[in-house]
Amino acid sequence: MPLRVGVVGGGQLARMMIAPAVELGVELRVLAEDEGMAASLAASAVGDYRDADTVLAFARDVDVITFDHEHVPQEVLAALVDAGVAVRPGPGALRFAQDKLVMRARLEELGMPQPEWAAVTGLAELQEFLDAHGGRAVVKTPRGGYDGKGVRVVSAATEADDWFAALAEDARGGALLVEELVDFSRELAQQVARRPSGQIIAYTVVETVQRDGVCAEVIAPAPHASERCLEVAAQIGAAIAEGLDVTGMLAVELFETTDERLLVNELAMRPHNSGHWSQDGAVTSQFEQHLRAVLDLPLGDTSPRAAWAVMVNILGGPANGSLDDRFPAALEAYPSAKVHTYGKEPRPGRKVGHINSVGDDLDDIAYEARAAASHFLD
Amino acid sequence: MPLRVGVVGGGQLARMMIAPAVELGVELRVLAEDEGMAASLAASAVGDYRDADTVLAFARDVDVITFDHEHVPQEVLAALVDAGVAVRPGPGALRFAQDKLVMRARLEELGMPQPEWAAVTGLAELQEFLDAHGGRAVVKTPRGGYDGKGVRVVSAATEADDWFAALAEDARGGALLVEELVDFSRELAQQVARRPSGQIIAYTVVETVQRDGVCAEVIAPAPHASERCLEVAAQIGAAIAEGLDVTGMLAVELFETTDERLLVNELAMRPHNSGHWSQDGAVTSQFEQHLRAVLDLPLGDTSPRAAWAVMVNILGGPANGSLDDRFPAALEAYPSAKVHTYGKEPRPGRKVGHINSVGDDLDDIAYEARAAASHFLD
Repeated sequence: MPLRVGVVGGGQLARMMIAPAVELGVELRVLAEDEGMAASLAASAVGDYRDADTVLAFARDVDVITFDHEHVPQEVLAALVDAGVAVRPGPGALRFAQDKLVMRARLEELGMPQPEWAAVTGLAELQEFLDAHGGRAVVKTPRGGYDGKGVRVVSAATEADDWFAALAEDARGGALLVEELVDFSRELAQQVARRPSGQIIAYTVVETVQRDGVCAEVIAPAPHASERCLEVAAQIGAAIAEGLDVTGMLAVELFETTDERLLVNELAMRPHNSGHWSQDGAVTSQFEQHLRAVLDLPLGDTSPRAAWAVMVNILGGPANGSLDDRFPAALEAYPSAKVHTYGKEPRPGRKVGHINSVGDDLDDIAYEARAAASHFLD
Repeated sequence: MPLRVGVVGGGQLARMMIAPAVELGVELRVLAEDEGMAASLAASAVGDYRDADTVLAFARDVDVITFDHEHVPQEVLAALVDAGVAVRPGPGALRFAQDKLVMRARLEELGMPQPEWAAVTGLAELQEFLDAHGGRAVVKTPRGGYDGKGVRVVSAATEADDWFAALAEDARGGALLVEELVDFSRELAQQVARRPSGQIIAYTVVETVQRDGVCAEVIAPAPHASERCLEVAAQIGAAIAEGLDVTGMLAVELFETTDERLLVNELAMRPHNSGHWSQDGAVTSQFEQHLRAVLDLPLGDTSPRAAWAVMVNILGGPANGSLDDRFPAALEAYPSAKVHTYGKEPRPGRKVGHINSVGDDLDDIAYEARAAASHFLD
């Protein structure tokens, strides 16, 4: 009987677990939201992850349940745990990924470096925070966005009027999160994997380049990172994984400030876009590592396979035609670029795939990855 | 509409095409011999590959048909071609893989270096060959074995009595193949990929270590291979791929003689055990390359990712229990060994998986791969 991992959610993260699952001989089952999702090859069920009965039925024949995203409601997670299902990461950890106020409070308890923040329940409190922080700040809806985004830079409290109004009508109530606008020189991401039995292993810290609020590019390791930066980032990753009892992969998005501090921005308790480089650039990819971690198997070597790896997202894809039409020219021009596609219809801004390039000259491989990716765009 | 590749045969070679197919966004369909085969995740049909109707029905909705093995009968291949199906490698190439006498004759026409050989129809002819070659030789049944093996070292013609008798009753008739017993120092394998449109690319030549007639271990590149050896091997691979019109992956098994010649032993027109190292040790694995080649897409970079790669087969597996039981100890002891399993029940002598190790110190990685593999045996 092979080991069986059930993944709730059928997106590209679940899809990219298929390859290592096949090689390890792990039976991967996916509860997809719809037919024809990215992970459809392994989709053994289609259904609503917010429905406890659906998820319980899906979980019946697997050794462990894990996730393509962090949106499974706590009631559903509790029902799984009550039924004796191994859930990794568990509800206790996912709570911190599901509510940014709960996360900020816990990170403060743990002494983690993070932007100054406050929970604000009304205009006056928000304005007070603004006044104390140079007149501008980032407002976030703690539990996903009311407008589908949930993050807004404001310079007057009234700019969050609609969110306060929505909050007043939200049965879950609560507050908005406001954070200082950090003067950062760049964004980094630190990934660690943790097993239920406690083993933790860190990947190298990477630089992430965002465009229009979306991850566009990742460079591993982060160029010019000092020994101290690498160490501190790894320590932060490990402390959060332990402190929040995360199992599986954890990504910690970090700001590197102009005065060389690292501040925790966001967390993701699953494989993450910032770790896609590891598919071709590390001995153990984050997808294999996630499977090993949630199965409580010994973790794999995270060493890079070469000095540098660059990942460039394919955002949007061609306006007409499919990604496949672009293969001949892209593969011909860049025979060492590794193309990963998600089986999704191209749509403006949508992540439909990525390119990894790995080698010893950063300029060369960054050029290769960007140029190869551009073949899949208009 | 994704590109669709149909693979006839559901063994581990088809299984190992799944990972690169997912990443490239190629829809892989497999015609498996039975339920529960190694490639069952992608098995879209189960049926007999010797039945033309079964294979034609399977081929209806794919862009190209390729193979997990070379045993599909010529009548079935001809029916596919007649129906307008792209078959790669084609029947003309597969003929040389299906009949060793036809292969030897063609290689002779192409001027390829090979052992001295003859087609023998009776005891007298065989004895004559033996007398002319030091009294010992290798006898082979040209089209698969009458006893399931098909290769025998003999020192008297009468030792092939039973095969001549079987030949006399075989409707296809013909002759046995006899080859000189080559005084080789070691065995090598050269892999090349070739597209229908002509592009050819070579992998580095590797050393293969056989035990009891089965591949046990592969070292890439072949240690101490001279520049001339690497070049000649690549030239032989390319000449055979072109001369036999092979598309997809071709493996040429070679003897390196004590006087430093290379002689062609056997051919395989598909991914091959000698190329499993490329999954972790080359920029483009043989499985991705095979898909690219049969789809007539530009071929990928075959460069090694490190100085050395070692592949060790897991032969047999544990007598009691499953491979999975051995994961904890194996992964704990060797976190950088890459484990690949085939979803097969352990059975003495059966290939149930392999370990790849990649790095810059051959002694270290050979030790790692062998030691990790030994965890999966009794």
